Amino acid sequence: MTEYRTGQQVRRVCVFGAGTIGASWAAYFLAHGLAVTVIDPAPDVQARVRAAIAVAWPKLRLLDPALDMAPPSRIAFFREACPEALDVDFVQENMVERLADKQAALALIDALAPPEVVIASSTSGLTMSDLQARCATPGRTIIGHPMNPPHLIPLVELVGGRLTDPAALQAAHGFYEAIGKKVVVLQKEMIGHLATRLTVALWREAAYLVASGAATVADVDAAVTYGPGLRSAVAGPHLSYHLGGGAGGLAAFFDWARAPLAAWCSDLGSPALDAGLEAALVEGVQAATGGRPVGELAAERDERLLRVLQALYAAERA
Amino acid sequence: MTEYRTGQQVRRVCVFGAGTIGASWAAYFLAHGLAVTVIDPAPDVQARVRAAIAVAWPKLRLLDPALDMAPPSRIAFFREACPEALDVDFVQENMVERLADKQAALALIDALAPPEVVIASSTSGLTMSDLQARCATPGRTIIGHPMNPPHLIPLVELVGGRLTDPAALQAAHGFYEAIGKKVVVLQKEMIGHLATRLTVALWREAAYLVASGAATVADVDAAVTYGPGLRSAVAGPHLSYHLGGGAGGLAAFFDWARAPLAAWCSDLGSPALDAGLEAALVEGVQAATGGRPVGELAAERDERLLRVLQALYAAERA
Repeated sequence: MTEYRTGQQVRRVCVFGAGTIGASWAAYFLAHGLAVTVIDPAPDVQARVRAAIAVAWPKLRLLDPALDMAPPSRIAFFREACPEALDVDFVQENMVERLADKQAALALIDALAPPEVVIASSTSGLTMSDLQARCATPGRTIIGHPMNPPHLIPLVELVGGRLTDPAALQAAHGFYEAIGKKVVVLQKEMIGHLATRLTVALWREAAYLVASGAATVADVDAAVTYGPGLRSAVAGPHLSYHLGGGAGGLAAFFDWARAPLAAWCSDLGSPALDAGLEAALVEGVQAATGGRPVGELAAERDERLLRVLQALYAAERA
Repeated sequence: MTEYRTGQQVRRVCVFGAGTIGASWAAYFLAHGLAVTVIDPAPDVQARVRAAIAVAWPKLRLLDPALDMAPPSRIAFFREACPEALDVDFVQENMVERLADKQAALALIDALAPPEVVIASSTSGLTMSDLQARCATPGRTIIGHPMNPPHLIPLVELVGGRLTDPAALQAAHGFYEAIGKKVVVLQKEMIGHLATRLTVALWREAAYLVASGAATVADVDAAVTYGPGLRSAVAGPHLSYHLGGGAGGLAAFFDWARAPLAAWCSDLGSPALDAGLEAALVEGVQAATGGRPVGELAAERDERLLRVLQALYAAERA
């Protein structure tokens, strides 16, 4: 039985693939005092990762003034996989979502990393049963799916494939929690894990409301952010209904809401995802944002997100 | 053509029906300097409304220190509808969701309130075309649907019935905005308006994930609050995907996400809403909350909500 490295035992992490997600992970790991090796052949990777660190660190410092950050010198860059780059305690893989490429990468990592090292993939769209197919020791390969941006959104979803060793999931759980992540574990593989499915479920109804002419993109988005979105940040869907039942909780909620819930569920929409709907949504978003540049809108969103996280972290410490 | 009272012209509001929602509205209207008449036959109504004010006001003061609150003496209680109680500038009806009772109440209000007064119903489950059926002047009757608790959640959804005068919707829009509400307008009647439908769409997938054995209630709820729920509080579903497309925005997002989106949408679940699922969810919520009293959980949720609102209000003022 392999004793995988976990919790505080993990001092060095390999970030395999440093696009947006990988660079954000690298910034986060470093900020939590870990040494990082980056494997990525892109010529601009050093500049991009250092830029990501420069953006992320002041925010992470705001969220947790007690953070014991590693000196930025504790990051090393490699153009390709090699024993030195994989002489680490944990691997986080973040390549583009192409099955064959990821299978090859995982097999290579598996061949080079010490056997006690868990290999986690950030994939959102693929399953580990498919990804681990070419690994010699697939037991230690898992999905550790973050939400973008990983350095700010606390969630990490864990799920194994058919050949994954439950002890590897356990070890990854301990490591992510030790660096402040909120971990959920899937009992079985699902397309889109949990968070993406829930995001898509909300978006599908939002798109349907626009498609059916009930409201504009701007009004549907505002209905979320000023209403249910606020509640979703502070209570999950089941807890919300539990509280909606008063002292009797969720059972009492079902007693009064059983009939309307069934009626609402059966009236939800499933719009045709065609070019016409895409065009209408793109036009609606342009109108909603006044055509302002995406970068500007993203910076505003991130500023609001940071404030919300600050507020919630303060609540957790209180 | 009727010139409905709107914006700053509204100085007196009648709250018809003061259960949880009505009491919260009364606290909010008073906190915004308006005089309030309450019509409710319940013997304990005065005590309950005054308790709601005592709970709401310190929170509203925290959210907006500049609030020019009315003295609590500016509230008057009536056991039944009468010309004095309805000598106001706006009516907010919040009775229990029984069609015949609400139809009768709206007809009575309509008979007693001056013709320039808009009559808004807080209903979540009924449509205005049905509710206004017995009114003599149905043109001024609209739905103004808040989210619970109305004194904290900014959203108000507006929609008219078949006989509603668009000018009445316009006037209500101006009034709600003048007291700090975020208003969205439906172009047509939909069961559950926007916010309830979006809430149900998220809950249905959440329930499906539990029903299918993919995750526990606790983990599904955590996946929302630590992931997409955070994003939903700061960006609606369309804006989120717009930002996900990078500089190319939503059009670029569709270009790479078209195939996985379609696959995710077609894999979303629609669980059988039966006694077995209800029991599993009730048990799951008990496990997730450790069986703690609902009142305690609600107080914690409200505390987190208040912190998030403070953070976002501060961002808006910045």
